[in-house]
Amino acid sequence: MLKHSKVRTPIIIVNFKTYAEATGEKAVKLSETAEKVSIETGVCIAVAPQFVDIPIVARRVSIPVFSQHIDPIGYGSFTGHVLPESVKEAGAVGTLINHSERRLKLADIDAAITRAREVGLISVVCSNNTPVSASAAALKPDMIAVEPPELIGTGIPVSKARPEVVTSTVEAVKRISPEVIVLCGAGITNGDDVAAAIRLGTEGILVASGVVKAKDPYKVMVDFAEAVLRAQR
Amino acid sequence: MLKHSKVRTPIIIVNFKTYAEATGEKAVKLSETAEKVSIETGVCIAVAPQFVDIPIVARRVSIPVFSQHIDPIGYGSFTGHVLPESVKEAGAVGTLINHSERRLKLADIDAAITRAREVGLISVVCSNNTPVSASAAALKPDMIAVEPPELIGTGIPVSKARPEVVTSTVEAVKRISPEVIVLCGAGITNGDDVAAAIRLGTEGILVASGVVKAKDPYKVMVDFAEAVLRAQR
Amino acid sequence: MLKHSKVRTPIIIVNFKTYAEATGEKAVKLSETAEKVSIETGVCIAVAPQFVDIPIVARRVSIPVFSQHIDPIGYGSFTGHVLPESVKEAGAVGTLINHSERRLKLADIDAAITRAREVGLISVVCSNNTPVSASAAALKPDMIAVEPPELIGTGIPVSKARPEVVTSTVEAVKRISPEVIVLCGAGITNGDDVAAAIRLGTEGILVASGVVKAKDPYKVMVDFAEAVLRAQR
Amino acid sequence: MLKHSKVRTPIIIVNFKTYAEATGEKAVKLSETAEKVSIETGVCIAVAPQFVDIPIVARRVSIPVFSQHIDPIGYGSFTGHVLPESVKEAGAVGTLINHSERRLKLADIDAAITRAREVGLISVVCSNNTPVSASAAALKPDMIAVEPPELIGTGIPVSKARPEVVTSTVEAVKRISPEVIVLCGAGITNGDDVAAAIRLGTEGILVASGVVKAKDPYKVMVDFAEAVLRAQR
Repeated sequence: MLKHSKVRTPIIIVNFKTYAEATGEKAVKLSETAEKVSIETGVCIAVAPQFVDIPIVARRVSIPVFSQHIDPIGYGSFTGHVLPESVKEAGAVGTLINHSERRLKLADIDAAITRAREVGLISVVCSNNTPVSASAAALKPDMIAVEPPELIGTGIPVSKARPEVVTSTVEAVKRISPEVIVLCGAGITNGDDVAAAIRLGTEGILVASGVVKAKDPYKVMVDFAEAVLRAQR
Repeated sequence: MLKHSKVRTPIIIVNFKTYAEATGEKAVKLSETAEKVSIETGVCIAVAPQFVDIPIVARRVSIPVFSQHIDPIGYGSFTGHVLPESVKEAGAVGTLINHSERRLKLADIDAAITRAREVGLISVVCSNNTPVSASAAALKPDMIAVEPPELIGTGIPVSKARPEVVTSTVEAVKRISPEVIVLCGAGITNGDDVAAAIRLGTEGILVASGVVKAKDPYKVMVDFAEAVLRAQR
Repeated sequence: MLKHSKVRTPIIIVNFKTYAEATGEKAVKLSETAEKVSIETGVCIAVAPQFVDIPIVARRVSIPVFSQHIDPIGYGSFTGHVLPESVKEAGAVGTLINHSERRLKLADIDAAITRAREVGLISVVCSNNTPVSASAAALKPDMIAVEPPELIGTGIPVSKARPEVVTSTVEAVKRISPEVIVLCGAGITNGDDVAAAIRLGTEGILVASGVVKAKDPYKVMVDFAEAVLRAQR
Repeated sequence: MLKHSKVRTPIIIVNFKTYAEATGEKAVKLSETAEKVSIETGVCIAVAPQFVDIPIVARRVSIPVFSQHIDPIGYGSFTGHVLPESVKEAGAVGTLINHSERRLKLADIDAAITRAREVGLISVVCSNNTPVSASAAALKPDMIAVEPPELIGTGIPVSKARPEVVTSTVEAVKRISPEVIVLCGAGITNGDDVAAAIRLGTEGILVASGVVKAKDPYKVMVDFAEAVLRAQR
């Protein structure tokens, strides 16, 4: 169903944000660590570095690289915008859209998903609750990642603090667009959180500080990947 | 189903924008003309004046008054914002949300609909195409008004130029939230356009320049209202 | 220098935000209290209610009424925007621009000041620090109100916590546009704060919660006004 | 005065926008052409490619590379933002700020200039008219590029169509911050336009389509560079 051979579910997407630990050369290193875990465990791990780091990361690792955002534009007079074609040419296979730190207008989310589809980028629309997830589902992105913003960066996982948000999101999304893949994010720091998310019906997670700011990102990602394998059985 | 006794379908909502012909005292006059047509024909006609004109218009006419926008906020530190409670207290019974000239972020549309519901305002979410209408439907506003932005103000009615946008919107909205009322807008200038819109499955129209900038708004609104009655038979 | 006979310095501008204590009928009551203090003390006190409350407040009190925001637009297709002409027709004599809760793009601040000038509204541009105050001064608004955002609503007055911000702002503004009046805001809760602000070179204050959320707004405003008179001597 | 050894005035900055002719591999090629002209003529030519193209371009050419935008942020939770540190690490020596296609709020322009200064990026603030240029000057960026938006992409040069905008901008900027370098842009297509700009008191130009969409960008840039040399004599 997903258009890129590298990307399969269950998936762990690591959002690098603008964290010092995941900028420039450190973005490459962290991506290499993610690649190592992915190869060792067989679980699909993708990374979402900053725009300027995409081409460098994409050349150095074989795992899927996502952009953190695209603008709903094409070639033309759009100074300072993020062109889907450029992101693709730089080596990204997909993109986050509407992250809670980079929210878009509804018409622009629709246009961004369309543009992603046109250039062959996998679209992951972020949402903050069940109704917004349902709303995003009607736009038929490839994936929806639900993240209650009040839990982002807290270490309190949505899968434990508010499991009903996850289950109702899966249900609402599948009712409107059964083919859309649901991920969950916010507050995930260990394998148990990941396993809980999968058991609640998601097909993966979107994580940031839980990996990037961990003392040992390798260990955390291994823990996550093994939890994914465990939860699948 | 609609929570306000004044509002019933089919409905004609006249958006005053910031047109000179519908500002201040002229907003009151045009609203009185709309009221006259509504009383004479029995068709529900609502007006959406500018924020500062809402209290004056609401005191002078008995027809429903809508706000052109609300912010997804509550009481508090929100200088320069439009508080749903204030709009309600000023006499509005409903509000447009996400008009193409005042587009909102997806999470804010969700929050604005919730706030409208909480204070008892009828919510009319504007959308620009079928997928966005479907997306808005998942948020369960009271009404959705689809207006292809490229036709707004052109005099080319969506019901004629792109009837498939109207029918596919009605279908998509009803599939997701059957109770949501669908209106259409953009380019409507005469009764035939209105009748076409109703026959395509909408329960009313959102109109601006077609009425406000008409030489004889009374005549145009009578034409619209009679078309509504004709189309219903 | 100021174009409206009602407005003179030193001035106390009370920003009603969307506070419950200053919405609808309560906005009228608080404005009447402000009017009472203004008449009793002879100090100019202005109020800045929400948009929908402007026409009602302006009819009921003789003191100056300000809008909390205007959009840099004219008559036309601007659904959900705040038209300077409407605000003026509704009875406002001036407007805040670029409040920290409603920041604008630089080109829009320039355009909003121009529009305010065209329709005869006194412009009060809010700024967050000295360089931004200097920058605003180059656009020649009538007044600039400097408010360090980190102090807004804290009860810690800028005139005490960071007096150098006030003096350097006055200096920077006067160097670029000597005719621009400087106010200060943020954290002001009693007469001493007001007197300190005036002694640091400002010609008035912009206050919100310090008055609106006071147990006895009348008493607080009398305290403020007497401090103004004291500081002037 | 300028902090980077590569950058000197007079300067020609070529903005690649999201033009197809200046994306990905074509961005590298066009940058190489610019480098060739710069070496042959001795005139400083800088390029401003898209974010993802910065690292690749910066590795392949010795001329200065600018970002088209930075966000006023630091390391942290800012998904989808453009971190000044990253742009710098990727090889940029400067950045445009507030281009008319990517306008910022006033407080954010101030913060972006501060951030650029902190990380050692040359800041070029774009403005749309004389008052906005004066306003930007008070924030003390390294350069200000005035571009009347109505002329961008028209082929009608500001230096000819509205020379008074250029001279009054130079005057206004120098009065407030004498050390700020003034460039002009919009509509520049040949050497005469460039020479006119320099004679009106600017120290260079910001150009986009005039170079990028030219049949022979090499020839156009040579024409520009020779005009710069001619105008300096």
